[in-house]
Amino acid sequence: MKVMRVSSASRPSLIAQALSSELKKNFGVEIQTIGAGAVNQAVKAIAIARGLLRPCGFDLSFQPEFVEIEKEGQARTALKLVISKQG
Amino acid sequence: MKVMRVSSASRPSLIAQALSSELKKNFGVEIQTIGAGAVNQAVKAIAIARGLLRPCGFDLSFQPEFVEIEKEGQARTALKLVISKQG
Repeated sequence: MKVMRVSSASRPSLIAQALSSELKKNFGVEIQTIGAGAVNQAVKAIAIARGLLRPCGFDLSFQPEFVEIEKEGQARTALKLVISKQG
Repeated sequence: MKVMRVSSASRPSLIAQALSSELKKNFGVEIQTIGAGAVNQAVKAIAIARGLLRPCGFDLSFQPEFVEIEKEGQARTALKLVISKQG
């Protein structure tokens, strides 16, 4: 499953386009986020992507989980959002 | 479907407990959030709730959508997170 990294500076409309083109080809995508701003951009992007995928006849849902990652030599807790295609 | 309002000051572990007890009784719950901090607390709570519900033999997923709401006389865009029980 492809992993996309989203930060607080990512633009939701661009993430949504990347997400929906990936989901047209594959069953699912993972988004990795660290921090409130990044989670917010990712969730907005998923809401936009649902609209982009509706004309193609499918919807998506996602499941969040905590993961420990290493960033700049430090252990950080990230939120991984696992997005699945439906319908 | 019950609507829960989550703010940036809400504690994820408490929201997770409320979520999981609601999902033991009903098929779904809606969470309404405004702003990055609130979205982050809600997504963390959903990740925690998945862990709380695992021993009961089910999982959950959610779908975000934009909604227009009125708060203190002003139109605001909120993110509604529709949570569904699975399995």
